[in-house]
Amino acid sequence: MKSLTRYLTFEIPERMDFVNITSDVEDAVRESGVREGLCLVNAMHITASVFINDDEPGLHQDYKDWLEGLAPHDPSRYRHNRTGEDNGDAHHKRQIMGREVVVAITGGKLDFGTWERIFYGEFDGRRRKRALVKIIGE
Amino acid sequence: MKSLTRYLTFEIPERMDFVNITSDVEDAVRESGVREGLCLVNAMHITASVFINDDEPGLHQDYKDWLEGLAPHDPSRYRHNRTGEDNGDAHHKRQIMGREVVVAITGGKLDFGTWERIFYGEFDGRRRKRALVKIIGE
Amino acid sequence: MKSLTRYLTFEIPERMDFVNITSDVEDAVRESGVREGLCLVNAMHITASVFINDDEPGLHQDYKDWLEGLAPHDPSRYRHNRTGEDNGDAHHKRQIMGREVVVAITGGKLDFGTWERIFYGEFDGRRRKRALVKIIGE
Repeated sequence: MKSLTRYLTFEIPERMDFVNITSDVEDAVRESGVREGLCLVNAMHITASVFINDDEPGLHQDYKDWLEGLAPHDPSRYRHNRTGEDNGDAHHKRQIMGREVVVAITGGKLDFGTWERIFYGEFDGRRRKRALVKIIGE
Repeated sequence: MKSLTRYLTFEIPERMDFVNITSDVEDAVRESGVREGLCLVNAMHITASVFINDDEPGLHQDYKDWLEGLAPHDPSRYRHNRTGEDNGDAHHKRQIMGREVVVAITGGKLDFGTWERIFYGEFDGRRRKRALVKIIGE
Repeated sequence: MKSLTRYLTFEIPERMDFVNITSDVEDAVRESGVREGLCLVNAMHITASVFINDDEPGLHQDYKDWLEGLAPHDPSRYRHNRTGEDNGDAHHKRQIMGREVVVAITGGKLDFGTWERIFYGEFDGRRRKRALVKIIGE
């Protein structure tokens, strides 16, 4: 069994934004030498997501509006913010969009449908954060 | 390490519907010869889900109503639809229900609780679509 | 390839509650002897979740209120409850919070960010339920 571990770092200037990290993950797959296996990509922070969807700016703005409706930023809404934080909303938005994705590796490549792209989703930006890529297989 | 890759195809006559694919995944597990490992099942489209829940028609109708409330179809609501699409809602519904499941294989079988069943969830049907089954283990 | 399977059991006195199971999963990783691999943790019931977030009581109460808003318990709302159940809401809450997490194992340990903790999320408690830990790697 082969394995590879990579850490991706982010410092997103907005509170909420999405970054296409597909090519970073593809680089890791290539470097791993794995032909058949699984690739895990996850946020290492609990106010961020990794998800797979379309690289289309209109959709990304739709997501931001929708998530703001489902879990508004307003710091006064969350008990969590009594700890001195103002990111209670980010812990909720991340649950909707998910922590991680697991992608098949087939013939040495991410086994993706036509429009699948991997995104880091930030909900409490303006600080340094990390995502993890872990590959296992043969 | 053994591995197996299978593609399942769908052409769902409704815009939104759920299909029990548990037996297809069980067939793949059997064929793989894997006794201990992991089985990934994911939608290969960004307007569809793979999820695990109950095979109960009332619940499935509940899910449809609930998802329609959380992300209504109405094409005028989504910037994404300015690209010429009418499936903005499907990209949102899929995020609620998830892209993929990972299931343990123990003793050559899906290691499932009593009521766990795997479903393909379609949110933009009436076209040909695919899901992926990837098994690794020994 | 090494593998290990563990079943965790719960009997939560409340209908909805969250239990930190991080140390149980860490014990399984240690016992497995896996240095590089993947660890799957999933609910074996379709009215429960396994998720990763903060071990902060205010946030957990925020989650409960938010999930109750997104999928209220009121048994009369759900067709599913015509089968004699009263847990239709739990099947919805679990979809928001997710069924499972997959965590990287690096150097023999869960490869976690500072605040990541694993929780069993119960939405239809007061009965005996199970979660599964499956580890594969080398």
